[in-house]
Amino acid sequence: METNVPYKTYLTEDEIPKQWYNVRADMETAHAPILNPGTGEPMSVADLEPVFCTELAKQELNTTDRFIDIPDEVRSFYKMYRPSPLIRATYLEKALDTPAHIYYKYEGNNTSGSHKLNSAIAQAYYAKQQGLTSLTTETGAGQWGTALSMACCYFGLDLKVYMVKVSCEQKPYRKAVMETYGAQVIPSPSDTTQVGKKMLAEFPDNTGSLGTAISEAVEVAVTSENTRYVLGSVLNQVLIHQSIIGLEAKAALDKLEVTPDIVIGCAGGGSNLGGLMAPFMAERLAGRQAPYFIAVEPASCPSMTRGRFAYDFCDTGQVTPLAKMYTLGNGFIPSANHAGGLRYHGMSPILSQLYHDGFLDEARAVEQSAVFEAAELFAKSEGTLPAPESAHAIRAAIDEALACKESGEKKTILFGLTGNGYFDLGAYQQYNEGTMTDYVPTDEDLERGFATIPTVPGA
Amino acid sequence: METNVPYKTYLTEDEIPKQWYNVRADMETAHAPILNPGTGEPMSVADLEPVFCTELAKQELNTTDRFIDIPDEVRSFYKMYRPSPLIRATYLEKALDTPAHIYYKYEGNNTSGSHKLNSAIAQAYYAKQQGLTSLTTETGAGQWGTALSMACCYFGLDLKVYMVKVSCEQKPYRKAVMETYGAQVIPSPSDTTQVGKKMLAEFPDNTGSLGTAISEAVEVAVTSENTRYVLGSVLNQVLIHQSIIGLEAKAALDKLEVTPDIVIGCAGGGSNLGGLMAPFMAERLAGRQAPYFIAVEPASCPSMTRGRFAYDFCDTGQVTPLAKMYTLGNGFIPSANHAGGLRYHGMSPILSQLYHDGFLDEARAVEQSAVFEAAELFAKSEGTLPAPESAHAIRAAIDEALACKESGEKKTILFGLTGNGYFDLGAYQQYNEGTMTDYVPTDEDLERGFATIPTVPGA
Repeated sequence: METNVPYKTYLTEDEIPKQWYNVRADMETAHAPILNPGTGEPMSVADLEPVFCTELAKQELNTTDRFIDIPDEVRSFYKMYRPSPLIRATYLEKALDTPAHIYYKYEGNNTSGSHKLNSAIAQAYYAKQQGLTSLTTETGAGQWGTALSMACCYFGLDLKVYMVKVSCEQKPYRKAVMETYGAQVIPSPSDTTQVGKKMLAEFPDNTGSLGTAISEAVEVAVTSENTRYVLGSVLNQVLIHQSIIGLEAKAALDKLEVTPDIVIGCAGGGSNLGGLMAPFMAERLAGRQAPYFIAVEPASCPSMTRGRFAYDFCDTGQVTPLAKMYTLGNGFIPSANHAGGLRYHGMSPILSQLYHDGFLDEARAVEQSAVFEAAELFAKSEGTLPAPESAHAIRAAIDEALACKESGEKKTILFGLTGNGYFDLGAYQQYNEGTMTDYVPTDEDLERGFATIPTVPGA
Repeated sequence: METNVPYKTYLTEDEIPKQWYNVRADMETAHAPILNPGTGEPMSVADLEPVFCTELAKQELNTTDRFIDIPDEVRSFYKMYRPSPLIRATYLEKALDTPAHIYYKYEGNNTSGSHKLNSAIAQAYYAKQQGLTSLTTETGAGQWGTALSMACCYFGLDLKVYMVKVSCEQKPYRKAVMETYGAQVIPSPSDTTQVGKKMLAEFPDNTGSLGTAISEAVEVAVTSENTRYVLGSVLNQVLIHQSIIGLEAKAALDKLEVTPDIVIGCAGGGSNLGGLMAPFMAERLAGRQAPYFIAVEPASCPSMTRGRFAYDFCDTGQVTPLAKMYTLGNGFIPSANHAGGLRYHGMSPILSQLYHDGFLDEARAVEQSAVFEAAELFAKSEGTLPAPESAHAIRAAIDEALACKESGEKKTILFGLTGNGYFDLGAYQQYNEGTMTDYVPTDEDLERGFATIPTVPGA
């Protein structure tokens, strides 16, 4: 371990950013608008208001303001667990015997266990400001649901969480955490919504997906009073809030006078990578020197590497607007992959556009057992047991560091460690016992999914 | 929330203490020696060497050195997760509407989830230095076992963990974490030892206790080559290592120019409270102004509040030396209380002596449901879901803060938040569902335990 290099770099609480960064203001491609699926017309704030609270609807459509003030109440909550540490992975570097310098921004030191809290508290704040009393949402791995439970508890809002059924079964204790913070948790698909009933009628053994859970939560929001729907990823508003990850990371790296050559993030809906890369992407979009960006997704749900760039519904029940994104089709049924947070058919429209335009340099799909191998090495060297989602980024970071070992290059790698794996031990157990299997969808599986992508007039 | 007061205070990595503090060097009462149960004679380093590695045996008997150097390798590992934050509980203060200022030292931001890692890494280091290849230990709640798994993994040592059977069943995922770090986990009592076989023959439904698990681990250590036993609490050596908690806490408070009026810690074996209060106790023992010290234990296992100050075995199988301590008797069978880490019949001999002599001011027993009520309030206000063990200290801190509200006093309270409750969700589930019950041993239960305290010639 080198001396004089701190292992962890913390900004002070006063240095927590006062504004989020909105990358769309800097994107050169006119951002494809979200469309009303009935008319094919772009949605307005008024169109979105039945689903989202007004301020968030505005953020969703905001393509002009580069910076958005972080409300004082949100910054006050951020102080509970932020700034998050930027860590120089000296122990991992040693284990790999690599000349590369590896840094990671660790977002797991809070009870939700991940970066999701950054957006949850913002969304709950705007709902409270508007005088709403309840929120609905979906959760996959349970990290978003836990984060939103904490946020709603803080602002005194009721919360109904539709949790992907397979995650509910794999992670019973996630439910207990959410209930401790006062949320109501419902396994999805459920018989509490029309969409859920329909899914169960068609396929009773359905173990659920984020897409279906979204449909259920949206249905409840639009049919209940003083209630809105909130989402933990994919949306533009979420990427705005998550920019705090990258802003803090860049500020800490600037203090260390370090410039990353490669920035790596796992990508399910895109919230973490979008947030982590935000200020670095600003450099790229301004034509200045910037790192090489890598999005890492599971081979079992390969929306960027094998999906289509097309308008699609954000949910399986086809109740949401249409977004232009890399998608496997809203009807794609992901396997019971353990990285529940990455089991989503689509991808953030912002990341999709940046990838399509070549600003996000690379998307890479990795298989589950290779991911857990990386997770185990990371846990044993750096101490922290990573979430399976985060371990996708670790896999790519390790591979890049090993490539440096091969070439002798001394690159600086930054990746996002989105969360810890304390609620994913069932998966680790399988890995330890050697019973974990990889799954890659066949071309036929993909074709079945693609067939559900709607035809949009004029798009 | 007050401005200009940081919520979290971090020392820098360079400010991690370079020496542990050994409170025994300052204690005025000649410290009661540990005795050979056969002869009644004090144990020497040579007597302890079959069980403990040599350096740790020396630390166990060291009553003269006030400070002991922390080896560089241990400090390097500490940098992975230390300094731990000192947190001003402004959100809890607000929820209580108290004039008291509440601070807590949070030790849960590492994968073991608790302060136990502080001693685990030290013990593994000395074992490695001596050329040993394997360690054995017991674990209750699983925190110590996880910590030692991480430490042994770091230094390449084999590890066998005897885990209290009831904890094993309540927390199956703890086992998966330990196995991820390469440890072998065995539910105790087991049929892998003579002691375990005897316990099972007498009482087949025995759900285990720390005392029994210790007996099994010690038996394996003394009957295997290049193997020693290590323990996560109770022992003097552990309190030396855990002094880092208090040393860091005091250094951070000194920076803030804050002097605590009350110091509170949960007490099972005494490792956390002993560590947290160490530098403050140094003040008291030197006759200077010092805080009021409170040890909080579960009403279900009340060694200090209802136990006897006597020589007793440290384990149920009666294979260890005798230590002078507050004890319920080595044969006391604790109820299946959820705070697994506090289910121990005895108490650190150091804390016991300090309590007996009036330097540790107060021991307080609290019931489980009141503890979880405090845990829930803490989680909802401060964000972090606490371990049930830690929540005993939270209960007392809240009660003291409420007393301040009553009297109008503006006392400064410091307590130890030893860990998080991410592996204790089964207990939270019971609390949420209203099925949690309190248990207080009857006088008859206690008498049965006291009857197992040995008679020691001349003690």
